[in-house]
Amino acid sequence: MIKVGILGGGQLGRMLLQAAANYPVKTYIMENDDACPAAHLCHNFTKGDITNFDDVYNFGKNLDAITIEIESVNEEALEKLESEGVKVYPKPSALKIIKNKILQKQFYKDNQIPTSDFVITQNKNELNQHQNFLPAAHKVGKGGYDGRGVELMKTTADFAKGFDAPSVLEKLVHIKKEIAVIIAVNDKGENALYPTVDMVFDQRLNLLEFQISPADLPEKVLWKAEAIALKVVKDLKSPGIFAVELFVDIDNNVLVNETAPRVHNSGHHTIEANYSSQFDMLWRIMLNYPLGCTEHILPAAIVNLLGAEGFNGEAHYEGLNEILQLDNVFIHIYGKKDTKPGRKMGHVTILSKEKQELIHQANRIKHTLKVVSKM
Amino acid sequence: MIKVGILGGGQLGRMLLQAAANYPVKTYIMENDDACPAAHLCHNFTKGDITNFDDVYNFGKNLDAITIEIESVNEEALEKLESEGVKVYPKPSALKIIKNKILQKQFYKDNQIPTSDFVITQNKNELNQHQNFLPAAHKVGKGGYDGRGVELMKTTADFAKGFDAPSVLEKLVHIKKEIAVIIAVNDKGENALYPTVDMVFDQRLNLLEFQISPADLPEKVLWKAEAIALKVVKDLKSPGIFAVELFVDIDNNVLVNETAPRVHNSGHHTIEANYSSQFDMLWRIMLNYPLGCTEHILPAAIVNLLGAEGFNGEAHYEGLNEILQLDNVFIHIYGKKDTKPGRKMGHVTILSKEKQELIHQANRIKHTLKVVSKM
Repeated sequence: MIKVGILGGGQLGRMLLQAAANYPVKTYIMENDDACPAAHLCHNFTKGDITNFDDVYNFGKNLDAITIEIESVNEEALEKLESEGVKVYPKPSALKIIKNKILQKQFYKDNQIPTSDFVITQNKNELNQHQNFLPAAHKVGKGGYDGRGVELMKTTADFAKGFDAPSVLEKLVHIKKEIAVIIAVNDKGENALYPTVDMVFDQRLNLLEFQISPADLPEKVLWKAEAIALKVVKDLKSPGIFAVELFVDIDNNVLVNETAPRVHNSGHHTIEANYSSQFDMLWRIMLNYPLGCTEHILPAAIVNLLGAEGFNGEAHYEGLNEILQLDNVFIHIYGKKDTKPGRKMGHVTILSKEKQELIHQANRIKHTLKVVSKM
Repeated sequence: MIKVGILGGGQLGRMLLQAAANYPVKTYIMENDDACPAAHLCHNFTKGDITNFDDVYNFGKNLDAITIEIESVNEEALEKLESEGVKVYPKPSALKIIKNKILQKQFYKDNQIPTSDFVITQNKNELNQHQNFLPAAHKVGKGGYDGRGVELMKTTADFAKGFDAPSVLEKLVHIKKEIAVIIAVNDKGENALYPTVDMVFDQRLNLLEFQISPADLPEKVLWKAEAIALKVVKDLKSPGIFAVELFVDIDNNVLVNETAPRVHNSGHHTIEANYSSQFDMLWRIMLNYPLGCTEHILPAAIVNLLGAEGFNGEAHYEGLNEILQLDNVFIHIYGKKDTKPGRKMGHVTILSKEKQELIHQANRIKHTLKVVSKM
């Protein structure tokens, strides 16, 4: 059986391993926490540091293929593994570009991919040269993840919160919508696009409310989004799964926000809503099977289940029974022992032909299901 | 987290564990083969003999709940575990009835549940007293499973193949169709029925060709089937998942063939085709959540993937790439290292609104996908 390893053992690894059990494949996970969500679902678990060269190299050297569930992995080890014949998804060359927000922005610019204007700052002081660039977002080049490593710069007073390390200052766009396109690419360069996803934000709190697929946008805007996302992925020249997050501005311009070279939160609904899920698709790519069908079985919404504010400790899911009574709702709890504010603890998928039903149930779930800690 | 154990680590355990990863639950498997399909997907694997009292008792005594994926388990140990407060799905009292073909037939008779006529034989010699009962099926009371332990008695010459142990001789029915109804029952006695499944046989070879859900039957026959299946399950007085297999005879009478007190091959399509799969449903029951929705998202067919005749050894899946190109098809390969003739190696689910499309793809899969051994 083909041996495939995953660097990282969080919820993405967990859902990858759920999908892997449909295929003949031997699975390996490396993560520094042996109680992580994916640890018990693989054939072989290795406790190790995914940012450490030796750990990654030793983990990967006897595998046929290796993938990641987080960008912050040791890319030098992946390069060495690739040079020795291990297939790496995504290729280290693509990962390198994406991992560093500076290189990523430069890549969009070099390839004439529409993205918001930006300048590069080497340290916090340099922000003072860019007062005319505000309002903007300051994003640290290396090490940012999942909302960390980003600060909003509305006025010069915000410069104090800036990063004192190589960073990108991105001009804010007048956003009408945020959308995401997930694209699968196999070793032959063939690709398959999933229907575009609407990311619906709470404007007041700037928090992701829920995601709806397919996105509700004029056809021309959708075509533009798909063409741009496809160009990003083609220019990255790597097989794998890619999630391209885009802005649609008030003039219906489409701009790339950022790209993830892996399975992604904006594609979790594909488990139930699409013929081949993003997780299934990555196995098809790594096992050298044909690409799957990305079409919807039914339209879907996703609600993320985040640790509630003010609760730290052993997770308890308030309102779960009420939500499990809904007919068209699918619960995914990631099995993390402890909750903390904002931690991704699970997600809920809703299927329905009716957009109003998707929104109605998404709101109901958001107001009913809470991750708290035991008293 | 609640601790739940499964006796047996085959494909049913494997699919149960895929579903378990959506919920907060600690999973345990016992099986005598540590390379079995489910071994690597649980939190704790115990190598042990599921028919041995001590093995089962020691495995179960620290668990909150325990279930089975095969009937041939040590029921005395389950009784003791139940008496000590471990929840057992199904209850040992129900398992006891079903495990023994004689008790099972007697149970139907005692509860006025329609089933084919039968007589009990204590040994092979007694068959000679029942020449007028032919044609019939001789089924051994204990230890039969998956086609084993059943012999057709068309003429007295077949008596030589009969079982020399307590058995049931069942009068053959003029079957028009075989169907199955899967029913979920929770601890409160609430139940949920899945749509009835048509089991389509190759009449010449007496081999299951494929299964289609929902079944194509007159409404009155469906109602009868559902009512009878529900009576079986209610009279068994146990929570769990139950698959009731029924015959529809040429006069549209509905007769119970047999019942399985567990997740069942006739319900595998529910993974993709129904809102709550049979595997999801069993976790809902064991974790004391509300029952799920048994409705179809789309109608479905299942093709079983059996080891081809004449091949023994390391499994190889011929035609897999061709089948993976079909848009509406879902592959489940159970990860068994070796194939042998007739061994259940996987299944394929097809989704479509159109019955003709389901049949067309099922036939295509049957003629394309073969489990052989490497040369």
